[in-house]
Amino acid sequence: MRFDGRRENELRKVTITKDYLAYAEGSVLIEMGNTKVICSASIEDRVPPFLKGKGTGWITAEYGMLPRSTQTRKIRESSRGKVDGRTQEIQRLIGRALRSVINLEDLGERTVWIDCDVIQADGGTRTASITGAFIALAQGLYKLYESKQIKSFPVKNYVAAISVGVVEGTPVLDLCYEEDSKAKVDMNVIMTDQKEFVEVQGTGEEAPFSRQELNKLLELAEKGNMELIKMQKEALGAIDELIGKANEEEIGEESNE
Amino acid sequence: MRFDGRRENELRKVTITKDYLAYAEGSVLIEMGNTKVICSASIEDRVPPFLKGKGTGWITAEYGMLPRSTQTRKIRESSRGKVDGRTQEIQRLIGRALRSVINLEDLGERTVWIDCDVIQADGGTRTASITGAFIALAQGLYKLYESKQIKSFPVKNYVAAISVGVVEGTPVLDLCYEEDSKAKVDMNVIMTDQKEFVEVQGTGEEAPFSRQELNKLLELAEKGNMELIKMQKEALGAIDELIGKANEEEIGEESNE
Amino acid sequence: MRFDGRRENELRKVTITKDYLAYAEGSVLIEMGNTKVICSASIEDRVPPFLKGKGTGWITAEYGMLPRSTQTRKIRESSRGKVDGRTQEIQRLIGRALRSVINLEDLGERTVWIDCDVIQADGGTRTASITGAFIALAQGLYKLYESKQIKSFPVKNYVAAISVGVVEGTPVLDLCYEEDSKAKVDMNVIMTDQKEFVEVQGTGEEAPFSRQELNKLLELAEKGNMELIKMQKEALGAIDELIGKANEEEIGEESNE
Amino acid sequence: MRFDGRRENELRKVTITKDYLAYAEGSVLIEMGNTKVICSASIEDRVPPFLKGKGTGWITAEYGMLPRSTQTRKIRESSRGKVDGRTQEIQRLIGRALRSVINLEDLGERTVWIDCDVIQADGGTRTASITGAFIALAQGLYKLYESKQIKSFPVKNYVAAISVGVVEGTPVLDLCYEEDSKAKVDMNVIMTDQKEFVEVQGTGEEAPFSRQELNKLLELAEKGNMELIKMQKEALGAIDELIGKANEEEIGEESNE
Amino acid sequence: MRFDGRRENELRKVTITKDYLAYAEGSVLIEMGNTKVICSASIEDRVPPFLKGKGTGWITAEYGMLPRSTQTRKIRESSRGKVDGRTQEIQRLIGRALRSVINLEDLGERTVWIDCDVIQADGGTRTASITGAFIALAQGLYKLYESKQIKSFPVKNYVAAISVGVVEGTPVLDLCYEEDSKAKVDMNVIMTDQKEFVEVQGTGEEAPFSRQELNKLLELAEKGNMELIKMQKEALGAIDELIGKANEEEIGEESNE
Amino acid sequence: MRFDGRRENELRKVTITKDYLAYAEGSVLIEMGNTKVICSASIEDRVPPFLKGKGTGWITAEYGMLPRSTQTRKIRESSRGKVDGRTQEIQRLIGRALRSVINLEDLGERTVWIDCDVIQADGGTRTASITGAFIALAQGLYKLYESKQIKSFPVKNYVAAISVGVVEGTPVLDLCYEEDSKAKVDMNVIMTDQKEFVEVQGTGEEAPFSRQELNKLLELAEKGNMELIKMQKEALGAIDELIGKANEEEIGEESNE
Repeated sequence: MRFDGRRENELRKVTITKDYLAYAEGSVLIEMGNTKVICSASIEDRVPPFLKGKGTGWITAEYGMLPRSTQTRKIRESSRGKVDGRTQEIQRLIGRALRSVINLEDLGERTVWIDCDVIQADGGTRTASITGAFIALAQGLYKLYESKQIKSFPVKNYVAAISVGVVEGTPVLDLCYEEDSKAKVDMNVIMTDQKEFVEVQGTGEEAPFSRQELNKLLELAEKGNMELIKMQKEALGAIDELIGKANEEEIGEESNE
Repeated sequence: MRFDGRRENELRKVTITKDYLAYAEGSVLIEMGNTKVICSASIEDRVPPFLKGKGTGWITAEYGMLPRSTQTRKIRESSRGKVDGRTQEIQRLIGRALRSVINLEDLGERTVWIDCDVIQADGGTRTASITGAFIALAQGLYKLYESKQIKSFPVKNYVAAISVGVVEGTPVLDLCYEEDSKAKVDMNVIMTDQKEFVEVQGTGEEAPFSRQELNKLLELAEKGNMELIKMQKEALGAIDELIGKANEEEIGEESNE
Repeated sequence: MRFDGRRENELRKVTITKDYLAYAEGSVLIEMGNTKVICSASIEDRVPPFLKGKGTGWITAEYGMLPRSTQTRKIRESSRGKVDGRTQEIQRLIGRALRSVINLEDLGERTVWIDCDVIQADGGTRTASITGAFIALAQGLYKLYESKQIKSFPVKNYVAAISVGVVEGTPVLDLCYEEDSKAKVDMNVIMTDQKEFVEVQGTGEEAPFSRQELNKLLELAEKGNMELIKMQKEALGAIDELIGKANEEEIGEESNE
Repeated sequence: MRFDGRRENELRKVTITKDYLAYAEGSVLIEMGNTKVICSASIEDRVPPFLKGKGTGWITAEYGMLPRSTQTRKIRESSRGKVDGRTQEIQRLIGRALRSVINLEDLGERTVWIDCDVIQADGGTRTASITGAFIALAQGLYKLYESKQIKSFPVKNYVAAISVGVVEGTPVLDLCYEEDSKAKVDMNVIMTDQKEFVEVQGTGEEAPFSRQELNKLLELAEKGNMELIKMQKEALGAIDELIGKANEEEIGEESNE
Repeated sequence: MRFDGRRENELRKVTITKDYLAYAEGSVLIEMGNTKVICSASIEDRVPPFLKGKGTGWITAEYGMLPRSTQTRKIRESSRGKVDGRTQEIQRLIGRALRSVINLEDLGERTVWIDCDVIQADGGTRTASITGAFIALAQGLYKLYESKQIKSFPVKNYVAAISVGVVEGTPVLDLCYEEDSKAKVDMNVIMTDQKEFVEVQGTGEEAPFSRQELNKLLELAEKGNMELIKMQKEALGAIDELIGKANEEEIGEESNE
Repeated sequence: MRFDGRRENELRKVTITKDYLAYAEGSVLIEMGNTKVICSASIEDRVPPFLKGKGTGWITAEYGMLPRSTQTRKIRESSRGKVDGRTQEIQRLIGRALRSVINLEDLGERTVWIDCDVIQADGGTRTASITGAFIALAQGLYKLYESKQIKSFPVKNYVAAISVGVVEGTPVLDLCYEEDSKAKVDMNVIMTDQKEFVEVQGTGEEAPFSRQELNKLLELAEKGNMELIKMQKEALGAIDELIGKANEEEIGEESNE
């Protein structure tokens, strides 16, 4: 039993509010316990300079925290005049995770801007951002598909993310802030609905960890991610069918080569 | 009748959700029509360098917009590496407005950080910020008062703000974005519960305006601000009594001099 | 009687030196008492990106203070690496004020850069900047008109600005620094020769102000601005005739619609 | 066989030149194939603000690439005016890796600055930086220990790092740039001499990866890291004895608790 | 004869207006032909961190150009967000030149800020800045001396500066902008009243120069600088006596050692 | 005899390692005593905006110091977010020196980026940078010439640089850090193989210097520079013949005009 009454392999209560913002092409408010993140997808009809004229699209992510999302007020990054290292790491991680499940050629020369803004932070904000942003992204892309701006729906797989860690000697799933601050090992695991890994980032902040611990943590993460992907499916409703189909076609093409 | 069915002197629907954030000393979500702003008050036990050792407190405000609060995505200020002129103007305005109704000596050497983060923008975000921030500020100060960290409650008056403007030749109250973009004259009026002005900022963006127009706009603003202050009183509940009292005492002291 | 011997409704001594700089298209040194500002207009044959291809011009203003224009040396903004909030507010104000009296379509795809550099600061630098910059602007535009680069002279109205405020309980005109630092209410009023308002910015820094005080301050400001516009006319000499005419034509056109 | 003639589990030629810089407390030039990194350790007698007065030390790392370390010249970060996201990620990674094997309390209120400057880049610069920086750090700390500025030698374990990846379907060790740019999966693994993990960072850049692939990659990484640690031991010579001892004592203390 | 009618060894018309600014401890407007620079000295009762507690003073200089001091408008450095290389070079040069003739120990722990702001630029702004700043500095230091804040007057020598160059094959003194832009060789020479060099900076921008050319240029520079120092003496009036005396005493002390 | 055993007119031991970097078009490691600088030349097929379409090339230089090249660690400029004044001065100096001996028209619309990175600093890093960079530049240009991308070899002259100074009353050649920090006069002299000056920068940091001292220093500098140019010739081998020839042709052309 954990201090908040959860079992070791239990997620916090997850709530997904779709269409949270009026103007974005896709948006959700995702809540995992007290962690709350607004995720939105904005589609722009151009690509960054390095992709101009290559007929392919791009997905980029930005992440921010409201100054008082945290227990002690955090200085606003715009006031400091620069984005700190942690934020940049998270932004790059979210972008990579989402791009890994999207067929960027099918997107055409478009950029999808993903914004993840943390309203309240109680641990796991980067993984909640990825899980929520996937839904906003799929919604945004669906608008393009529905209005026939793109021919095939470019989402190949679901992607979700969760944190795991070793707290007081015990591997646990979905750490809240209090657990995170005591964890000897901290790992973020991003997976697809095929139970494959998109990213594994484990850090022995206080002490190195063994192969056995790593294995145990990966199992917990798989359980958590599959539960999250189930909720993503529910949230996306009819869009779910398109995701399966796009994936199969591509696999078909590849096996014909 | 306006395009959204309102009369010329009618506010949009106002909703105030108290204690919106878990960790801040005071916080509200204020909604005025589709404009939504999270306002929070964070109290810090020190003052900026220019006030050190003077035995007085300070109130400072920061304002931000989520990138997709607007119809078209707005570049994140932290990514641009600087706070733009409009944001700075608004931050300074919010700070001045709130300081004007607070007895800073009673606050002791403390700073209250006000954060106004626009989740969704449909015109009037700076005035909604002031109206909402006042409540967060009063709540935050009440925590200090309740825990006896300060002896007298330093709020002298209510303060609220509203926009007025001349749209298609007609002076109207509480402009939404569509009206604002067509307005010949645009004015923000900040007032106390005593029907006095804290700030009047009127701009003839497209054409100069006459004394008569100015007078008509000030009347509309007074009506709107008094309605907003009524809602602030309801939101603050029992704290209302403290606000009245502090004010009287000070007036008493002054008339004895 | 004020501490410097002026009556409540009296401007400081105003001196306007035309063609102060050798290379600028238009330039003046404006002195209002000890406040001295160099204003220049520079014309560039292109517009900012947001106006490209729209066949219209733009006017933008920059404002700066020499480090030792003030009683205590002020850090140079270029050394601090950023333009502070106050400077940005003033720059935006000067730009808006001047654009409000110029027919930007008549300007063609050109930008006029207005530079207001404060050599010595004794209160009222932003209003002196506007009053002086109008002359530099009109001179610069006249060079375009004279050389037939533009067909009609685009200045619709004179524009001038003055500060007013409540000092020791008395509303006064054209505050010097010492008065400004003691003022309970501080207001900047920008007007055209038609006695209409371009901008009204009043702040109750120390205490809110009543409708009666506001009215009294606006009257003082009108008196001051009309005197300043008279001096602008004298400084512009023969150009004055063009300003009247352009305005009438436009009004004529509008009434024919 | 790989394109450069190596077997799948074979490191590139590793050369470690000790005392490469004349002034640093510790320094090496580490070469892994064509990748060349200068690593130095500089000791400063104070700690960052967040550690002041806590009686503990700190290790921080900075990483840079010479502009022409790469095939195409890279813009100098000092000219761009900011450190990019990739650099910050690497800096944070190096710092965490080194801190994980150092007993920071034994260091006293001192900061060790680790600088890793890439002279030539042919893949694996961040892992080479960690492997080389460990030696520079141990040397630098030895100077403190030798001169009796610290009582116990604070290095608990060796730490080394290597990249692994899946290239053309095959898991391989120590990727050069050409392999790295073709890799479907890319992983950096940081380990101690106890075969425990300090950090595991695997990314399925082009395609997600399975649990089996992950396991295979971790095995390759273990082999590579153990070979690197052997070379670190040789480079450190007599210092090796101190490293073992410090570790045992601490374990002893812990088991007595 | 030069294009403006001057002989090869002739300065432009020099005008020095003392006490140009009302608030600075020392200030002049120096005009050399069409080049006009406001120089001021501001005294601050503290030194930069690297001098704290060493009982010695410091002199630092800043240089700026009004945007429209030049033929084509120059972007304001505060808007660009950084001071460019040329400006920094000039600032460092002015600071070194002035420090070389001041006994910094006699100044106590004070910093003199020298500001040189170019109102109009027609070549030779950096040398005019030095020549003018020396007067402002001497005036500022005299205020300290007169009010007995310092015991001995710390100015050891006069210092002045002038540009020389080879224009169309002929070495000439005090180049205006048109000459400067055609010069094959460009040299700035800073000298004391003892005919000694404080700084010699010669650049063969278009073609290298010979020893003979160098010698000829140095002779012209000596002539020009001695004329400028004569004007500085006239401008300083009674202060001149103090400068001579301080110098002698120090020489006396040295020869006694 | 100097403290390191050298005579007054003796250079430190100079070592030039050609092709030090694998990817650059030209590169050397130059060592002058303990001062070590990596110089590289990178060729880019475009020019800065101010040269676009003018059919001429450009050479630009950047200079940096590894943080621990110095006795005490120096803050990384990329971390500080800006390039300091000294670095900018040096960068501009290196660029000017190299451009002075190159026929930029012959280069076509190309930019050569020169990077000088100081690995170890013991005085004279800017002069060593110029001497080394000339070799890297000539090598890089030779690649263009050899592959027939340019028709004539654009190097007109050799260029080298050395520092001289007055240390303890004696003029000496090639100051190391210890001498430099004690020098009363410090001068950098850049010369061509024709014994002509490209740049002379002398500073009387502690005390002004006489004409006699200046003459003595220039003689030492000539001796040092001619020795350095001899080493450059050896390093460049067969390229030397091209340098002589290009120069003669141009002179021939000029005398025919």
